Amino acid sequence: MNQEVRFRRKHVIIFLSIIGILFIYSLSSSRDCAGSEQFSRSKVDGVESWEAGQGRDAFLPNRKGPTIYAVTPTYARPVQKAELTRLSQVIRLVPNVFWVIVEDASQTSTLVTNLLRRSGLQERSVQLFAKTPTNFKLQGKDPNWLKPRGVEQRNEALKWIRNRLKHNALGEPESPGHSIVYFMDDDNTYSTELFEEMSTIERGKVGVWPVGLVGGLMVEKPVLNRDGLVLGFNSAWKPERPFPLDMAGFAISSDLLLENPQAQFSYEVERGYQESEILRHLTIVHDMQPLANRCKDVLVWHTRTETPKLDAEKALQKSGKKSNDGMEV
Amino acid sequence: MNQEVRFRRKHVIIFLSIIGILFIYSLSSSRDCAGSEQFSRSKVDGVESWEAGQGRDAFLPNRKGPTIYAVTPTYARPVQKAELTRLSQVIRLVPNVFWVIVEDASQTSTLVTNLLRRSGLQERSVQLFAKTPTNFKLQGKDPNWLKPRGVEQRNEALKWIRNRLKHNALGEPESPGHSIVYFMDDDNTYSTELFEEMSTIERGKVGVWPVGLVGGLMVEKPVLNRDGLVLGFNSAWKPERPFPLDMAGFAISSDLLLENPQAQFSYEVERGYQESEILRHLTIVHDMQPLANRCKDVLVWHTRTETPKLDAEKALQKSGKKSNDGMEV
Repeated sequence: MNQEVRFRRKHVIIFLSIIGILFIYSLSSSRDCAGSEQFSRSKVDGVESWEAGQGRDAFLPNRKGPTIYAVTPTYARPVQKAELTRLSQVIRLVPNVFWVIVEDASQTSTLVTNLLRRSGLQERSVQLFAKTPTNFKLQGKDPNWLKPRGVEQRNEALKWIRNRLKHNALGEPESPGHSIVYFMDDDNTYSTELFEEMSTIERGKVGVWPVGLVGGLMVEKPVLNRDGLVLGFNSAWKPERPFPLDMAGFAISSDLLLENPQAQFSYEVERGYQESEILRHLTIVHDMQPLANRCKDVLVWHTRTETPKLDAEKALQKSGKKSNDGMEV
Repeated sequence: MNQEVRFRRKHVIIFLSIIGILFIYSLSSSRDCAGSEQFSRSKVDGVESWEAGQGRDAFLPNRKGPTIYAVTPTYARPVQKAELTRLSQVIRLVPNVFWVIVEDASQTSTLVTNLLRRSGLQERSVQLFAKTPTNFKLQGKDPNWLKPRGVEQRNEALKWIRNRLKHNALGEPESPGHSIVYFMDDDNTYSTELFEEMSTIERGKVGVWPVGLVGGLMVEKPVLNRDGLVLGFNSAWKPERPFPLDMAGFAISSDLLLENPQAQFSYEVERGYQESEILRHLTIVHDMQPLANRCKDVLVWHTRTETPKLDAEKALQKSGKKSNDGMEV
């Protein structure tokens, strides 16, 4: 082989080696795209946060954290589809949430089935139902605090989750047996950052954080000492409760639910005591894990949606008509 | 050079060539990840829909459709951050929306700046301000329909958008000069499918569709003839208006706004006539483009959020304290 050919071959080998190195590099960067959504972690004001779709040093899918079972009791009313639509959007943005919807009905509805399908969440949701017994159901003009709401539905969800965890249906390979349970009402407002915080709840712990616009206050929040231990809460409404906080203000490591099968909600407790009812089986205040920047960030708000005034609709109905004939609203 | 060395070299060259080919392949597949979010189109019930993050035959970014300028007037109040948080979530899911937030204030607020940053929307949003003149501002217990809201803010946004389109700041290479303008209030509920529908608005057209829970009806909607021409609307409230529809029920092809620079909102019109005020310059009812499955699908709802009762907060304030001291709610 002459000098020239050998020289050319050498160049070809160097060139192909460079391509090879670039290929290995590209493989490692394209793996970041493998998940159904791209998430990146960025530091904002000293708080680490996840942001969807920004593409800055994206994480591998197995970095997305433990499964969060978000339990949503819901019932038929004019704003139901709107509320669930908003809620589905935050869930679409957080890939480790599994949505457990429980309808207050004697069967599942096509409205909820359609919503799950059209939002692309079928794969990570379940549609359950559990009808509130008639004697506990709010009547006509009862104020909404008269009787406990969501008891039947949340207990049904707990039963389903405990069963699923026991049979380890998800596998959860990186973190066997560790997932999070959160009670997510259908009218509150949830930031995506709340779910990142929840993802850091340790085994055997209940995480707590502030909730905006609840209990007559701008914010109801855990009170910490200098070492970050939860001393109590700043609640103004019934502060004598064992756990004076809102349902939106905590989430539970699933092992606690398996170890304490008796922990659930109850019709037999006073108004405002549902949170205390389940938590008393699981933890004490001092053992709770404070999240959201040492409880200084508000990442969830107890918003309430007005019941729409449908005067014109009622007038239509009297003449046997309806504006939404054949339409799902 | 002996036979063995030559043989080995040949293998190295073949091996590196394969790697080279794989590299080129990986480059072309990683281009699908180039956008800030991955979208795929799927057929559901005969309606084509976009779903974020499903990863099924993902589109290249330039398939995402025309830019939709979503104009949101907003003002400081306890639920403001919650409302904008919910709104930011649907915008994060629709990559061709550019968010134009206009605060009713004499300067921009850090609350809105922080929200845009933490939601990762800085790159596709602008934060403007325009203070409503004092004589037009609602006072204390005025009902919210007494004086027109959002006039100053929407007009400021129109000025900004017209200026941007004239200078073609975005480039919009696939569709020069064609974008969509939509007035997106901060408390309504919007599905992602609404924005797919809007993306099909043709040049020179105003798109229309049903709106849920507005005007005393379950749904206010355009009435079409058999050929799909818009004949009118089913509105029960002030049906004598030239365009008896809600602000959430239409969007405008931007060329109409450039051709009709006088089209804007006004303080001088009766309650309920803002929509008619801008539309009368741009179109006639028969020329409107019906969307959302021939106006049979409800993809937006006129939800209203309750003003939270902050009794305990007011009591705290009397003793010089606040629950949200040093916190942004």
